[in-house]
Amino acid sequence: MAAFVRNLWYAAGWATDIASDLIGIRILDEPVLLYRIPSGEAVAIGGTCPHRFAPLHLGRMCEDGSVECPYHGLRFDRTGACVLNPHENGRIPGAARVASYPLVERHGVLWIWMGDAAKADPAAIPLFDQVTDPAKRTVKGQTHLAANYEIVADNLLDLSHTQFLHANFLKADHILTAKHEVSQEGRTLFSRRWIPDIVAPPSFARQLANPTARVDHWIRARWDAPGLHRLDIGATLTGRPEDEGIRIEGSHLLTPETQVTTHYFYSHTRNVALDSESEDERVRNWHQVGFNQQDKPMIEAVQRRMGGVELLELHPILFSIDAAAMRARRILARLRGEEQPDIISQEAAE
Amino acid sequence: MAAFVRNLWYAAGWATDIASDLIGIRILDEPVLLYRIPSGEAVAIGGTCPHRFAPLHLGRMCEDGSVECPYHGLRFDRTGACVLNPHENGRIPGAARVASYPLVERHGVLWIWMGDAAKADPAAIPLFDQVTDPAKRTVKGQTHLAANYEIVADNLLDLSHTQFLHANFLKADHILTAKHEVSQEGRTLFSRRWIPDIVAPPSFARQLANPTARVDHWIRARWDAPGLHRLDIGATLTGRPEDEGIRIEGSHLLTPETQVTTHYFYSHTRNVALDSESEDERVRNWHQVGFNQQDKPMIEAVQRRMGGVELLELHPILFSIDAAAMRARRILARLRGEEQPDIISQEAAE
Amino acid sequence: MAAFVRNLWYAAGWATDIASDLIGIRILDEPVLLYRIPSGEAVAIGGTCPHRFAPLHLGRMCEDGSVECPYHGLRFDRTGACVLNPHENGRIPGAARVASYPLVERHGVLWIWMGDAAKADPAAIPLFDQVTDPAKRTVKGQTHLAANYEIVADNLLDLSHTQFLHANFLKADHILTAKHEVSQEGRTLFSRRWIPDIVAPPSFARQLANPTARVDHWIRARWDAPGLHRLDIGATLTGRPEDEGIRIEGSHLLTPETQVTTHYFYSHTRNVALDSESEDERVRNWHQVGFNQQDKPMIEAVQRRMGGVELLELHPILFSIDAAAMRARRILARLRGEEQPDIISQEAAE
Repeated sequence: MAAFVRNLWYAAGWATDIASDLIGIRILDEPVLLYRIPSGEAVAIGGTCPHRFAPLHLGRMCEDGSVECPYHGLRFDRTGACVLNPHENGRIPGAARVASYPLVERHGVLWIWMGDAAKADPAAIPLFDQVTDPAKRTVKGQTHLAANYEIVADNLLDLSHTQFLHANFLKADHILTAKHEVSQEGRTLFSRRWIPDIVAPPSFARQLANPTARVDHWIRARWDAPGLHRLDIGATLTGRPEDEGIRIEGSHLLTPETQVTTHYFYSHTRNVALDSESEDERVRNWHQVGFNQQDKPMIEAVQRRMGGVELLELHPILFSIDAAAMRARRILARLRGEEQPDIISQEAAE
Repeated sequence: MAAFVRNLWYAAGWATDIASDLIGIRILDEPVLLYRIPSGEAVAIGGTCPHRFAPLHLGRMCEDGSVECPYHGLRFDRTGACVLNPHENGRIPGAARVASYPLVERHGVLWIWMGDAAKADPAAIPLFDQVTDPAKRTVKGQTHLAANYEIVADNLLDLSHTQFLHANFLKADHILTAKHEVSQEGRTLFSRRWIPDIVAPPSFARQLANPTARVDHWIRARWDAPGLHRLDIGATLTGRPEDEGIRIEGSHLLTPETQVTTHYFYSHTRNVALDSESEDERVRNWHQVGFNQQDKPMIEAVQRRMGGVELLELHPILFSIDAAAMRARRILARLRGEEQPDIISQEAAE
Repeated sequence: MAAFVRNLWYAAGWATDIASDLIGIRILDEPVLLYRIPSGEAVAIGGTCPHRFAPLHLGRMCEDGSVECPYHGLRFDRTGACVLNPHENGRIPGAARVASYPLVERHGVLWIWMGDAAKADPAAIPLFDQVTDPAKRTVKGQTHLAANYEIVADNLLDLSHTQFLHANFLKADHILTAKHEVSQEGRTLFSRRWIPDIVAPPSFARQLANPTARVDHWIRARWDAPGLHRLDIGATLTGRPEDEGIRIEGSHLLTPETQVTTHYFYSHTRNVALDSESEDERVRNWHQVGFNQQDKPMIEAVQRRMGGVELLELHPILFSIDAAAMRARRILARLRGEEQPDIISQEAAE
């Protein structure tokens, strides 16, 4: 399958989910250890001891912020250097070190850089500022899928599936008929649907003073490599400014665990019902019923049917609804090619 | 492992098990969708949408008998053609189609043809008319084995194993000593044992007015490719015509799911105790205890010990009890060779 | 992965665990059948019938000590020869036989020879006479690990890990500071630590009249190929002869099931508290909590992180604590090379 793109920011987790425990996580098929040093800063180093290959997350953090291997007691600091060897009279070989990964905490997300550290520019992290916006309410979670991250992204990049896969509670004919624009700026994709003057869809209607009011409705998505989606779905009374409307902003952050499994971090931010726990519950229920029981089994079934073969090698019948997903694949293919020139020439030759 | 033979009728299921649901089943390692169109006719098409590879059996049948893909709503009719595209203003690309398989409902079985449709002649379906004979009583079922279908057929083609594997309730010394004839007509094999003038075996004795009476006993089997077995086991009072006797007719239909897993459809038809539910229960119990607890674990253990290698490459020590199974393998090898001439010359060279 | 060494004695089981049942066990990835013939002698033959590859341990032992195949009734004696064929009028083909393995019962262990029978010299079985010493008390057991046997041996050959992995109940700083000698005699390795005049470690203190007495403490290990460890851990009052002290002798016998799974037979022999069932319980608890909950998950995690690659190909950072394990690996590599000269030249070339 296609190589991973390394020189990118990947979501390693929600900042609030990394506290006092050592967290072992596999990213791009590499074991990574996430933890917070005593100052509270989150750091990421290689997850396997170079002595006897023990998983470091089974060890413990020492008072100085180093991590002690659970098997024979070597300690590594946040730079990945071994700082204590309880054997050999304390002598530390130069090779005794693990990887260290740039890690940035921003917008409630821990962003990890799996490539050349010299190229790790935090300015390249896409904006997800709605997650920590104090004027809004955010519900967060994470799940795991047995599918390649590009297959998961296909689902998020083509919302026309809601009409069928989620027909029982999201059915809305306008999504199929609305004009759909896809555009690209640099390595960022934008998808926009504008549906003027319709009866408010149910998820918005229940927040309106007059639930049968007519609204202008929008569905927008932004994608950045490798699979960082920001959704902006809203409705405002017909003809009124967007800012008066109800807006639901989602972040859907896909991180490859392996070639065929994906970490999925998601959030749902709203600008209404800020104190409503029942609305929080409704959002969690959507992820449980909608995503985990409808999207996830479908995506995993698709992965099994594809049998580990790349999508394009299977010659799918593609439609305009696939345009955004295909552009995303082309951007990823180009990034792979920039990192591994041998691959791009091979892809070009095919 | 050996290629599948495609130009054959395979059992896809009991007709009574396909009703209003869409049924996804894998046959010869291909996903197949079985369902009944509104007229009641059973049909079979490819089980995977060519757009994004979603499993069609998770979709739904529409009023016109087409099947709607659960993911993005494309619809396919019984010929496999896409008949509705909810996207692209309804435009349907010519390549948007799935396979369609000849399917025939006969003797209570749905027979599917996995090869060249032009060669699909229903006259070639072996006769299993006992299954739907209103003058008899039939109990049906199905199970699944983690073994190649030829390994399962070996079990059915050599009933001498009953003396050992089922010794606890089928032990009957005559099966080892009876003269055993194996013959072949075209691509059909026949196996016959005739055991005259013995004390009635228990399964027959309990149906006799005089349970200790002496009987003439027969055990006959017919095999057709790929693995369609009809058993005819009976007993009549010594010297009396067979038609006066008690007869148990079995069908044992093996369909490869993959190279190492098999669908097994079975039926048990008797000409006595036609209204006896306790006799039905006894038959079901035999399949539960005899087959599922004795044959199935043995067949699966044999498959594991063989480790995915073809039987003959393992150089088994063969006996006359294996004659029918070896003939069946030769017929299958010849059929494979006819479909794939490259293979037969290779097998001949070995 | 590295080939198995065949011309060695392997532990097949505790003698007391082989009684009237047929035992199927996989050793060096070969199915083996262990059982006792009517005289009480334990024997080992190939575990798979050469007719149709049924597992013989599912059959039964006959009165003459032969084993009947569960599927079609062939019988094999202790030499592996087929001695009864219920088919073919009893004719037995010369090729109808299974392997037979030299098996020796000594010190309560069944030792099996998986190589050239002509080279099977029982004098080469390492001494584990403490197991059956009537003046001592022995607790025995067995477990199974999802790891190559050399990875398991690494754990046993470097006890410094107790200080970290078992810190909760075995922590003893002296194990890291004590002088550690490793020596080799022929193909046997010895590891010795002598720690004079310390406060008695807890496991010894509780057996002393004065639990706070000072003792001379020793930790010794002997290793023989393939992975046969004898541990001798003791303490005597400072300056007193060893023979007056408390001594705990362990045997830890590793037998490869496959390249990535290992049978582990262990015993724990003490020269004190000979009638104490609570002490027996304490030993069993150590294996449950210490080994099964601490060592086993760590060893299996290490195997997963190593991903089936040989240790040295992963370029581990090695310390003096690894000296014994590295010597053991060199001895095994040499033995492999003697059996398969092609391999040694390849290893030398690397």
